[in-house]
Amino acid sequence: MTELLEIRNLHSCFSGIQGFYQHDSSVIGLPMRFSVYQPPQAQQHSVPVLFFLAGLTCTEETFMIKAGAQRYAADYGLMLVTMDTSPRETGIPGESDNWDFGSGAGFYLDATAPPWSNHYLMESYITQELYEIIVNQFPADKHRIGITGHSMGGHGALTLGLRHTEKFRSVSAFAPVSAPIQCPWGQKAFTHFLGKNQDYWRNHDATALIKDGHHISDMFIDQGLNDPFLSEQLRPDQLENACHNAGQKLTLRYHPGYDHSYYFISTFIDDHLKYHRDILNDSF
Amino acid sequence: MTELLEIRNLHSCFSGIQGFYQHDSSVIGLPMRFSVYQPPQAQQHSVPVLFFLAGLTCTEETFMIKAGAQRYAADYGLMLVTMDTSPRETGIPGESDNWDFGSGAGFYLDATAPPWSNHYLMESYITQELYEIIVNQFPADKHRIGITGHSMGGHGALTLGLRHTEKFRSVSAFAPVSAPIQCPWGQKAFTHFLGKNQDYWRNHDATALIKDGHHISDMFIDQGLNDPFLSEQLRPDQLENACHNAGQKLTLRYHPGYDHSYYFISTFIDDHLKYHRDILNDSF
Repeated sequence: MTELLEIRNLHSCFSGIQGFYQHDSSVIGLPMRFSVYQPPQAQQHSVPVLFFLAGLTCTEETFMIKAGAQRYAADYGLMLVTMDTSPRETGIPGESDNWDFGSGAGFYLDATAPPWSNHYLMESYITQELYEIIVNQFPADKHRIGITGHSMGGHGALTLGLRHTEKFRSVSAFAPVSAPIQCPWGQKAFTHFLGKNQDYWRNHDATALIKDGHHISDMFIDQGLNDPFLSEQLRPDQLENACHNAGQKLTLRYHPGYDHSYYFISTFIDDHLKYHRDILNDSF
Repeated sequence: MTELLEIRNLHSCFSGIQGFYQHDSSVIGLPMRFSVYQPPQAQQHSVPVLFFLAGLTCTEETFMIKAGAQRYAADYGLMLVTMDTSPRETGIPGESDNWDFGSGAGFYLDATAPPWSNHYLMESYITQELYEIIVNQFPADKHRIGITGHSMGGHGALTLGLRHTEKFRSVSAFAPVSAPIQCPWGQKAFTHFLGKNQDYWRNHDATALIKDGHHISDMFIDQGLNDPFLSEQLRPDQLENACHNAGQKLTLRYHPGYDHSYYFISTFIDDHLKYHRDILNDSF
């Protein structure tokens, strides 16, 4: 099925095309925005794809503006896909009252608790609707798609990557919320989106997923040691322990001096794009 | 003289330091903000410097966030300096009423007409006060300093570069307002800042400066052909004609498909940093 896409902006960038789009999402039930960078190679043939899931308060624009990733994507022939971090203007009372929950903070899961379950269905939106748009309406190689993200979006990349292994062949993250069940951001969001029964939370927590037997071939995480959220919210050590106990391969790099900003991401984005390129090019 | 600098933020970035600063400017008479990227080489010795002057509505943050320049500056050992595009909150009535004049639109000149002449003194701010701060309080090589900019800031880079040849050894621009006397943005700003006597305007117009005998060893300009401001506001053809007639060396590249955005700047910023590096490294 072809979805009608409104083109909001197109920019030439490193001989490729930086596009911003909007469409009426059938999953979300409201307009949604996303962005695609098509490298120059996509003018000739289908190319591998990397989804990037952004963090709290971000939009589909943030990564494309701040990360400096297009330069590498053009070199490597990778398509980049980003999307807004939540539904917008749902009419749900209080949706914009908190910077770390609700609007701009959809946590990349399908809410099961009303009223959020009416619209906050980001997991299905990304893994089904947007995924199909990218595969069917862009020059994307559907067998070579990876996923990465930052902070809340790192949590999204890890959990969606662990649970949708048929869709994402490579998984990495920047400063991910690695054990949301155990941190204030995750506890707040999951209580509202999923209800108070914590048994349902484990499907949306990378550390719990590893403990519960999910497995992928590899994971790659970068983390700044000067990140103010490291010890309370991010907790990659919890994920590292779980991976160690489960025999899950993980490369976790700590970087002295680096913080939680896009200055951190821009410094290491090349390593992540290379990582995904190498795995995706080895897929056959 | 050492000026007291308030450090607003420091971020590790490509093994260097991305810093944001504020100080009480004696020239402007109000607080001013600027930003410096120190490449890793600056931890060992003084390094060459490139000033970047941003366009309408921008701040000292815009280039540092959007251009992806730090990656190259780190490779080449170049320090990057940006500053806000005008004084802020001067109390002058109507200063924020227009996006293309006043706040966020200081046009990199010293206003001579009241009330603007009380605070809008961006030329002296950059070429004297900020220049001295960079030279005296950062590991900058004062003999190797270049200048570039975008749009209104391209105008600033060309005019300050042409008139302060003892301070700036290399000059380039992205999509500069090349003949402001002849375009609506320039006419509006110059009328307010300089008064209606157009004889005074020529000192702040790159094309007129070339016609009037100013000369530098080289100029380098990139311009997108899909830039919506090209024919009415930017007019690099006017500057090219003046350079041709005056024997002024100029490399002007037109890029099909590229627009006025930072997606354009980010694509070609590497070429500009290399250009400045090569000239600044040849200075001795």
